[in-house]
Amino acid sequence: MAVYTEVSDEALAAFLADYDIGSMVAFRGIAEGVENSNFSLRTTGGDFILTLYEKRVIPAELPWFLGLMEHLAGRGIVCPQPVRGRDGQALRQLAGRHAAITTFLPGVWPRRVRPEHCGPVGAALAALHLAGEGYAATRANALGPQGWAPLLNRSVGGCDRVQPGLSIELPAALGKILAAWPADLPVGHIHADLFPDNVFFLDGRLSGLIDFYFAATDILAYDIAVCLNAWCFEQDLAFNVTKARAMLGAYETIRPLSPAERAALPVLCQGAALRFALTRLYDWINTPADALVTRKDPLEYVRRLRFHLAARDAHAYGI
Amino acid sequence: MAVYTEVSDEALAAFLADYDIGSMVAFRGIAEGVENSNFSLRTTGGDFILTLYEKRVIPAELPWFLGLMEHLAGRGIVCPQPVRGRDGQALRQLAGRHAAITTFLPGVWPRRVRPEHCGPVGAALAALHLAGEGYAATRANALGPQGWAPLLNRSVGGCDRVQPGLSIELPAALGKILAAWPADLPVGHIHADLFPDNVFFLDGRLSGLIDFYFAATDILAYDIAVCLNAWCFEQDLAFNVTKARAMLGAYETIRPLSPAERAALPVLCQGAALRFALTRLYDWINTPADALVTRKDPLEYVRRLRFHLAARDAHAYGI
Repeated sequence: MAVYTEVSDEALAAFLADYDIGSMVAFRGIAEGVENSNFSLRTTGGDFILTLYEKRVIPAELPWFLGLMEHLAGRGIVCPQPVRGRDGQALRQLAGRHAAITTFLPGVWPRRVRPEHCGPVGAALAALHLAGEGYAATRANALGPQGWAPLLNRSVGGCDRVQPGLSIELPAALGKILAAWPADLPVGHIHADLFPDNVFFLDGRLSGLIDFYFAATDILAYDIAVCLNAWCFEQDLAFNVTKARAMLGAYETIRPLSPAERAALPVLCQGAALRFALTRLYDWINTPADALVTRKDPLEYVRRLRFHLAARDAHAYGI
Repeated sequence: MAVYTEVSDEALAAFLADYDIGSMVAFRGIAEGVENSNFSLRTTGGDFILTLYEKRVIPAELPWFLGLMEHLAGRGIVCPQPVRGRDGQALRQLAGRHAAITTFLPGVWPRRVRPEHCGPVGAALAALHLAGEGYAATRANALGPQGWAPLLNRSVGGCDRVQPGLSIELPAALGKILAAWPADLPVGHIHADLFPDNVFFLDGRLSGLIDFYFAATDILAYDIAVCLNAWCFEQDLAFNVTKARAMLGAYETIRPLSPAERAALPVLCQGAALRFALTRLYDWINTPADALVTRKDPLEYVRRLRFHLAARDAHAYGI
């Protein structure tokens, strides 16, 4: 569930008084999302999302995320827009948390990915990468390659309980990936978590992107690798090259890949699969088996990792 | 969290095609509620709630609940209205569940109850009781007095682990309550779960009542007893007689209580406290201590029960 902090009506009314968005009409917790508390907020001025930032978010980084969203929206990307209060501030405190109101985006995220979703996602990702240019501040990717060894170390002792052999397989894969990690690819601001639940569609068209709280400054093509992992495998974990081709083809209509970026796709995809395998593995090992929360299976990403380790070159991805 | 069942976009689009409410604009899971899966649904025709009925609900009873909501709305109670499809049906199937669309109610439920909430709740409850007249079908209260002994039997073996002595205290209280349970009080359709999260306020006025899926045909004044338990105790479990007086006074402006109903308030309150203590106790004992879901503390209702057992008459409730 995605409401970790409750907000009293008085606190909420006082909070809203700092904005010029009218008076409250409705306020409901949103079930989606796992990191922060999100509420759907309707006022006489319209629809908004209220986010309370929970423990994982580093408060000092919030202005960077909000600034990126404003920058992107100013350059045509449909994404939540921070709403500033009467004092000009978008970020304030509510119920003991840092909090911000952002605009509401219409649309529905695709519960089941079809090939026709993948082209629009590729195009939107390329547009995001271009629109990010000019946002001068940078944010290191805490869950990028430098973060993987520490993350693995926190789970390696327990990972053979998830599947025997992982304590050998994952360190070997990590070593191979880090040794081959590209150094000179174009860098920019990436979303880094553009999974289906962060992409809205409306009437068959992509209508917006949400949840920029993993965004960072990193290799642009790594963001494509995240999306190939997130969108192009079937339920049985077979890779759907039709989806990949649609995604990459649409991406390249907006931002063509260099030969070096294409050549790096396998290792970038390996790294992306490893990154999600490692965070899921950590959560898996540290969440009680009988807890009522759904743990996401890390093996789904170990299997993706194996697919990418077997990929010889970008042809594996349909290009 | 309150989304137990995911709905694919294709299934949802096909489902909506059976209605005359326009095309989809937005669709988000709602965090509130613990029994069913609820989604906020916006179409070009307006705002709605989509509910998928999960395991606790008995499918054969759904028409009774939806019929009650329609009956009440037709008599001026602001509550969700079942939306009928083109075929005239309000109840259909989606994602392997029984499902219904109801109208969206504006308003916000009070996270912290203040005395000024309690009068409107009392008045709304009385109006609900009067409006229920004429809805001919009845539903036995599965969580009424006949259900308490079986419920206690399922937990009594574990309840001393929650607090030593409960295995003596609760059966004794149950025996006392059942022996004194009134037989001849006015009966009608009751909400039976009118907690603060089921009552919306807007601009300081009560704007609607939701979640009728515990409603039943039972002693009307028992519904007041549920509300006295749910609304009139402070965080420290002190009874706030000002709140009770406001609630009862407002109730009686709409539907005056008979002397017998007033006299029965202590035992009705005891029964209501026991009912919530027992369901919470069952959940407490059967939810792992290290689960990430919040278990509601049964002792909060054991303490309310003790208060009511000490009440000599209705004066304890400020009247």
